[in-house]
Amino acid sequence: MKFSSKVQRCFQSPMRKFHPYAVAAAAAGKTIYHLNIGQPDIETPPAYFEAVRDFHQQVLAYAPSPGMPELIDAIIGYYAKIGVPLTPDDVLITTGGSEALQFVCNCILDDGDEIILPEPFYSNYNTFISSTGAAIHPIPTRPEDGYFYADRDKIEAAITPNTRAILITNPGNPTGTVLTRDQMQMILDVCVKNDIFLIADEVYREFVYSGEPLASFGQLSGGEEHVVLIDSVSKRFSACGARIGCIISRNRELMAQALKYCQARLSVATLDQVAAAALYSVGPEYFEAVRVEYKRRRDTVVRKLAEIPGVVCECPKGAFYLMAALPIDDAETFQQWLLEEFDDNGDTVMFAAGGGFYQTEGRGRNEIRIAYVKEQHVLERAIDLLALGIRKYNETHK
Amino acid sequence: MKFSSKVQRCFQSPMRKFHPYAVAAAAAGKTIYHLNIGQPDIETPPAYFEAVRDFHQQVLAYAPSPGMPELIDAIIGYYAKIGVPLTPDDVLITTGGSEALQFVCNCILDDGDEIILPEPFYSNYNTFISSTGAAIHPIPTRPEDGYFYADRDKIEAAITPNTRAILITNPGNPTGTVLTRDQMQMILDVCVKNDIFLIADEVYREFVYSGEPLASFGQLSGGEEHVVLIDSVSKRFSACGARIGCIISRNRELMAQALKYCQARLSVATLDQVAAAALYSVGPEYFEAVRVEYKRRRDTVVRKLAEIPGVVCECPKGAFYLMAALPIDDAETFQQWLLEEFDDNGDTVMFAAGGGFYQTEGRGRNEIRIAYVKEQHVLERAIDLLALGIRKYNETHK
Repeated sequence: MKFSSKVQRCFQSPMRKFHPYAVAAAAAGKTIYHLNIGQPDIETPPAYFEAVRDFHQQVLAYAPSPGMPELIDAIIGYYAKIGVPLTPDDVLITTGGSEALQFVCNCILDDGDEIILPEPFYSNYNTFISSTGAAIHPIPTRPEDGYFYADRDKIEAAITPNTRAILITNPGNPTGTVLTRDQMQMILDVCVKNDIFLIADEVYREFVYSGEPLASFGQLSGGEEHVVLIDSVSKRFSACGARIGCIISRNRELMAQALKYCQARLSVATLDQVAAAALYSVGPEYFEAVRVEYKRRRDTVVRKLAEIPGVVCECPKGAFYLMAALPIDDAETFQQWLLEEFDDNGDTVMFAAGGGFYQTEGRGRNEIRIAYVKEQHVLERAIDLLALGIRKYNETHK
Repeated sequence: MKFSSKVQRCFQSPMRKFHPYAVAAAAAGKTIYHLNIGQPDIETPPAYFEAVRDFHQQVLAYAPSPGMPELIDAIIGYYAKIGVPLTPDDVLITTGGSEALQFVCNCILDDGDEIILPEPFYSNYNTFISSTGAAIHPIPTRPEDGYFYADRDKIEAAITPNTRAILITNPGNPTGTVLTRDQMQMILDVCVKNDIFLIADEVYREFVYSGEPLASFGQLSGGEEHVVLIDSVSKRFSACGARIGCIISRNRELMAQALKYCQARLSVATLDQVAAAALYSVGPEYFEAVRVEYKRRRDTVVRKLAEIPGVVCECPKGAFYLMAALPIDDAETFQQWLLEEFDDNGDTVMFAAGGGFYQTEGRGRNEIRIAYVKEQHVLERAIDLLALGIRKYNETHK
């Protein structure tokens, strides 16, 4: 029995690759400081659980395939407030942002097609894209430039006759980069000019730290047919386990095609949709408090990283991730060593090795992604462990 | 901007195709008796909602990608009782049986590959398979033979060098056919001999009406590496809105490949997994009561269909569907007419037109699928409406 060429092109998650070593380290009594997984520790708004407890239907029935009207209305209300007018036909509810991405990729990508992504990128994109048979065409960036990619020449150089879309994560995962309004407009213009889609994964929209208004590619005028937004309650409301996301687009044909996939998988979980609708009732003070907390954490991590000799890391402007280049030979070897050989008073540290976020072979080998979704003192200790680890690793590996 | 060749090969759901006409009919004041959707009216066991209300974590976090251990354990316990020994590595939790099917198709099917399905088949299989680029090779059946397909010669005649799997729904949707143990063994033998997978969608396992013990391809010995089970809580516990399913296989390589997809979409909804685990605490009296109720409904529908001149329908042995050939020219035209032109005291009826369950062009045109998931008196009235509709339609269309 053989397996498909597509699944064989997919990789294990770089966030979870070292899980077996972590299990062994924990079994050996080590305490692991996890900077590798973007699971926020912020409380989910109680409105979620209240809505769930208030659900009193006796049959847990399928929801409508495009999503429950009350959730779609809540999302439309949220977007209206940030200057993106939507109608119910512009929204399809999905099982997390993951399913939204998967459906959009399936709708527009064929074998031999290409999709442009700034590199490094969220590694799971690779699986969604590989499963369509299409190829990723990366826009290269450098840690020394703060992973800057919003350069018209660089982007246009990546376009070929097979290009179907540009996929942007803004604010960025894994880099935390945030586009300016002008940069967003430029990227949309490139898409319009080349008649390709602009897929904007904006699940980290709330997490910007310079006082900017919340930005969305949906706010830009002109080229509405080209814009596809990927959204989710996971990060916005610290509700990752709800698995509620959506596709937003004013491209009627795209939405009609994507609806076929929605119908084929019947519906998104009913209770989670009811509860996700209730999440949208939280006020701006919720987001403000979360933003303040993440900003404090970002500042801590950036400050402490700057104290480590040889680390290259620009201060990221958004999301709750950063990429850094370390003064080591190979982040994967280093990670394995941290779990197997290193400890400081029984403690060690995990990050996501950078190579898994790159398409180009050999890139990102000395880089790591850090998710700063833990409390201050945990982050401080984790970066201290990283600093100590780098020093000891380089002593023993030189 | 262009759309993928794959999504263009996918169709709208035959269960939902006439939704716009139904909306118009309802707006015109008609009452529609729905026989088209397999949404059971049976109450979900209260254990589900109790578990949801007892969930008191403050952060709704991602669950592990392969599924929550408590749900996997519950499923292993259920299978142990029907003679299928499993370990946690044999189970991957998915978002409904739909995602399980999609992952398995993606793991084993490439462009140019073929998968064998008895025809008529659950129409959403077409979307999952088309998205891989593979083709469906149908095993033809006839309403006059009760849609019988378990014939070794017929099955072997469908195998080509490109065949990767046989996909069986047992008990069957849309036909309600149920395989005997010998037929199951024969089909597995064919798969072993030809080194292909046997994908068994067994989500209707509980719904058999002749006193047979619960059957699973997982019970057969020999060829364990070839067997992949698709399962779900949707129909078993009348919990369609939970979107909890699973892939079960002892093929290590398949499970390792499928895990990549599980990781890429991060996790299945946390609360629904916790609650689904609680569902497995219900006793055999729950299933027995449900079985008795569905059997009564099946008998009603079959009895009343037999009274309509020209209808061909063998009594189905399982699930809660049946297919019937009607004495009309075209079920889609008839359905549209029922919604637009017909009523009896303001009432009309919907079914799923048969053509959508066939791969072979032109097959199933005068057939319909009925889901008998409503109360007795509703089913009786619905079949009366069907009988009256057939008579009037044929009077006006001849």
